[in-house]
Order: sequence, then C-alpha cells, then structure tokens
Amino acid sequence: MKKKLHIGVIGGSSCTEKTAKLAELVGREIAQIGAVLVCGGLGGVMEAACRGAKQAGGATIGILPNWSKESANEFVDIPIVTGLGDMRNLMVVRNSDAVIALPGKYGTLSEIAFCLNSATPLISLSNWNVSKKIIRARDAQQAVELAMQEITKRNE
Amino acid sequence: MKKKLHIGVIGGSSCTEKTAKLAELVGREIAQIGAVLVCGGLGGVMEAACRGAKQAGGATIGILPNWSKESANEFVDIPIVTGLGDMRNLMVVRNSDAVIALPGKYGTLSEIAFCLNSATPLISLSNWNVSKKIIRARDAQQAVELAMQEITKRNE
Amino acid sequence: MKKKLHIGVIGGSSCTEKTAKLAELVGREIAQIGAVLVCGGLGGVMEAACRGAKQAGGATIGILPNWSKESANEFVDIPIVTGLGDMRNLMVVRNSDAVIALPGKYGTLSEIAFCLNSATPLISLSNWNVSKKIIRARDAQQAVELAMQEITKRNE
Amino acid sequence: MKKKLHIGVIGGSSCTEKTAKLAELVGREIAQIGAVLVCGGLGGVMEAACRGAKQAGGATIGILPNWSKESANEFVDIPIVTGLGDMRNLMVVRNSDAVIALPGKYGTLSEIAFCLNSATPLISLSNWNVSKKIIRARDAQQAVELAMQEITKRNE
Repeated sequence: MKKKLHIGVIGGSSCTEKTAKLAELVGREIAQIGAVLVCGGLGGVMEAACRGAKQAGGATIGILPNWSKESANEFVDIPIVTGLGDMRNLMVVRNSDAVIALPGKYGTLSEIAFCLNSATPLISLSNWNVSKKIIRARDAQQAVELAMQEITKRNE
Repeated sequence: MKKKLHIGVIGGSSCTEKTAKLAELVGREIAQIGAVLVCGGLGGVMEAACRGAKQAGGATIGILPNWSKESANEFVDIPIVTGLGDMRNLMVVRNSDAVIALPGKYGTLSEIAFCLNSATPLISLSNWNVSKKIIRARDAQQAVELAMQEITKRNE
Repeated sequence: MKKKLHIGVIGGSSCTEKTAKLAELVGREIAQIGAVLVCGGLGGVMEAACRGAKQAGGATIGILPNWSKESANEFVDIPIVTGLGDMRNLMVVRNSDAVIALPGKYGTLSEIAFCLNSATPLISLSNWNVSKKIIRARDAQQAVELAMQEITKRNE
Repeated sequence: MKKKLHIGVIGGSSCTEKTAKLAELVGREIAQIGAVLVCGGLGGVMEAACRGAKQAGGATIGILPNWSKESANEFVDIPIVTGLGDMRNLMVVRNSDAVIALPGKYGTLSEIAFCLNSATPLISLSNWNVSKKIIRARDAQQAVELAMQEITKRNE
C-alpha cells in the first residue's frame, strides 16, 4: 500500500478573515487531491486550513506543541502531542512532503527556515520573502498544484 | 465529533514468534473496539501489533525515532517522524490514553517508567514487574478490556 | 586540552535526610576526583549532590526540564534549559560518562532504563534492581571509584 | 552567588575568513565582559567565536545537535549533547540572555526567528534583515555592548 502524501500548512495562530478564507481554500484543495493535511494543530491559519480539509472530506494531523490533545482545533482528526514547544515546528516540516506557507509571524518564519534548511519544497502565499528557493503561488489552487509538482519532481 | 481513543502498544523491536502472536492479537482487539493503535512504528512487537490491527480493519500510528517515514513497518497508516531517538518513547506514552506492555528490553522499560510517571494506565503482558500500579492481564482480550476500563474510570 | 569527565547523578526530586546525606557525599567524591557533576538540576538528590560537589570545589551542570534557569537549585553552576520535560532524562544520561543512581521513583527508573539501553555505565546506590548490568556500590566513595573504573575500562 | 550571563553566538557552520575574524572578536569581547559564550558547538562561526573567547580566558558552552561530544570544536569547554538535530537551535537561543547573529544560512535564520519569537534580545552583524526588532551593530565591540545594554534593560 502506498502511503498518502502529507502536505503541511504553516501560518499564524491568529489571522485576518481574509487569510483564514485563503487557508480554508488551501485545506480544501489538499483534501481534494487526496493528500493528508499536516499542521501545528492550533488556531488561526491552522484551524482554517483543517476546516477546509474536513469540508472536502479530507484527513488532518495536528502536531501540537504541548501535551494536551484538547488544545487541538476541532477540525484535527489526529492530534499528536509533543511537549516540545516551538521545537515541534521542525516536526511539522519534516512530516510534510511539501509545505504551503500562509501569512504568519516569527513561528512561521522558523518553519520557513527549517523547510529551506531541509530541502522540503516550500510554496508560499506568505509575507516572508527570505529566499529565492521559495516558490510563490498566486492562489490556493495553484499552491497545491505547485506542491504536487515539486513532490513529483523529487520522486522521479 | 468525539476523538477516537488511542491505545499504545509497547514492546521489543525484535521478539519471539510467541510474543509476535500475542502482539498481533492485542492489535486486533484494539481495532475491534474501534480505538486507534499507537506505537513506536518499528519492527518486532510494534509490527506484529500493527499487522493485527490492520487485519481487523483498524488504524495505526507509528511515532518513529528518526526522520525517515520509510523506516515505519508496512502496517503503519500514519507514520510520524520525530528525530528524537529514544526521547520519542515519552511521546508514544503521552499520545496514548492507555498503554499495553508486551515483552521488551530497556527501551520498553523506559516507556513503562514514563507511563508510571505520567499516570497513564498501564496494562501488562510483559516481563517487567516494577510497580504495583501496573495492571496485569492474562491475555490479549483481557488486556484491551482492562485498558478500556481504566480509560473509562478516569473520564468519569 | 583533555575534556573533563562528566559523572551523572540521578535520584528523586524529593528525598529523605539519609538519602540527601548520601547524595551529598557522592557529589563531594565526584568533585574530589576532578570530574564535573551532571544532573537534572532540581531539588532532592540533585540538590544535595550539587551541594556536596560545591563544598569540595567542584563544578556542576543542571539539565533542566523546563525553560527557566531560575528553577535550578542554588548549587548548579551551569544551568542548561531544555523545554523537554521528562524527555530531558535521556539528555542527563547521554551527557554523562557514567551515572550514579540514588533512590528515586519512576523518573529515576526511566533514567536507569536509558543508561542500560545506551550502555552508559550505571553504578547504583538505589532501590531499583532491574538488571544484572547495574553495578552495585556500598557507599558514596566506592560508587565514584567504580564509576571511574568503568569509564577507564571503556576507554582502553 | 549570581549566575554568570550567557551570551549566544549564532552563524554559519562554515564561513569566510572575514566572518571568522569577526566571530573571533565577538567571542573575545564576550569573554572580556565576564560572560559565558553559548553556541551550537560546531565549526565556522561557532568555532571562531569559541576560539576568541578562549584567547581572552573566557568559558564556552556548545549545545550540539547530535549525541557525540567529540563533534564539538576544540574550543568548547562544556559540550552538551542533545540528539535533537536542528531542534537544538531553539535550545541555543533559550540558553542565552542575548544573542549575537553573524552571517549564516537557513539554520541561522531559524535561530533568528526563535529569538524574535521568544523576545530574546538579538544583536545583528548578520545578513538577515527580517525584522525591525533586530538591533544592528557595526562591529564586535558594539555588538557585545548592545547585548549587555539589552540584558540590563530587561532586568530593571
């Protein structure tokens, strides 16, 4: 049996309505291509993306910074508690075949840095422009398409 | 939506045929009560338990010590890579609502210690008798029944 | 320059007067042979051992479970914060060339298991008799002597 | 007894001669004010900074990503092994009262992000300009002076 692809979504634990709408669309697209959504399991971008994935019948994993699975947002199917605080940011990245970045602050920036450092494909709908290796997308649909393209390219 | 129960299975990464058979039965029982099996994702007891769970149509999570999801045994549905080495043993315990111990060596002993330390219910089919808090079972079916009883008791 | 030896001391974060006295003697002996004392940085056995080491002019490292260096006992020279909770128990072990166990509960048992699992020499003045690989000592002085012997043996 | 201040130095594990010279000066200044230098313990900027600190009679801590204290550069007094890979980057930051950034790649960027996220004062001689909260210095001496000012300010 082939394992399902895991696509990470990173971004702020609080966000604007506009960003939440975008995250929701990203989550929906991830579900529609049959991939599992991986995220940090909390609110904001993470919650909106999980909500979108569930609306489209997808599966969601939340890799939480604490030991409380109750801290996961309600759209997380599989909460994984880590007790690692922000060190779990690397775990979100390394559990993803590709990562899609949405707007966020310094936690998101640490995840972007970890993507770049571990050669995990990084598609961005985000504010951080810290490397030419980041692949920019114009919308949710294109972000997920580009993520798939990058994953395919690396598996060839 | 209520989250599914997570039941952990711990034990050696290599084991006898007899122990493998027992682990397989434990995995099957966990699946039959509708719980998700959590383990360290590798061979031996972990693999046999996952195989049993899949035979009964259940779901399995493997919390791996390294960064390679390819290192998971073939019956793991959801591999979670941690890069934590044996520190991930605590993560196996804390991601379980109750833990069933099968025969194993010092890695298993560390997980037993973490169960006892974090008040996670621990049902034993194992060789380690290090505390009166360990609840002994005589077979796979009773082990899973006792795990469920303990979880229910704590949620009352 | 040759690095100093690091000798770990493990045991309960609270303890009896008698155990504290023993831990203090162990700390003093470690300092007197010129080794650095490594521990979990908190109270009970850890604090008593650090106090003994400082009385004899030694150096002490405390590998703390949280992010607060203020949580270290007052005899820790070098507090290292980890944010890892009990996962830091493995870090205490792996930062020690040999470990001396004093009485403790399940946290101590997890550290004993990690010593046995990583082939770190383990000298015991403790209550846990879980393996024939544990080398028993009758008092503080002999414990430190045995630790040194084991380290020398492995470096030959 | 008052604990010594810990000042972190971050930057590439390989670097140009010019950057190494700068790192060495930073290490020397840290030693001269009586602070302990904290770093990731490896080569490049980390090694040059430790060399500078030792030249000026200072003390150095290397928080290593692996389990091998032999991997520390020769100027590390106190190697701390973590087995955490790049997750240890957060540990470097959180063990520092202030951090001085030199040129580096994405690992350095992740540490910069963690400083900003945890409100650890960050003084920069680096290439990364990702936040207005980063305090820029023009040379090694000013960097250490600014680090001290920020620490003092926060302790008032």
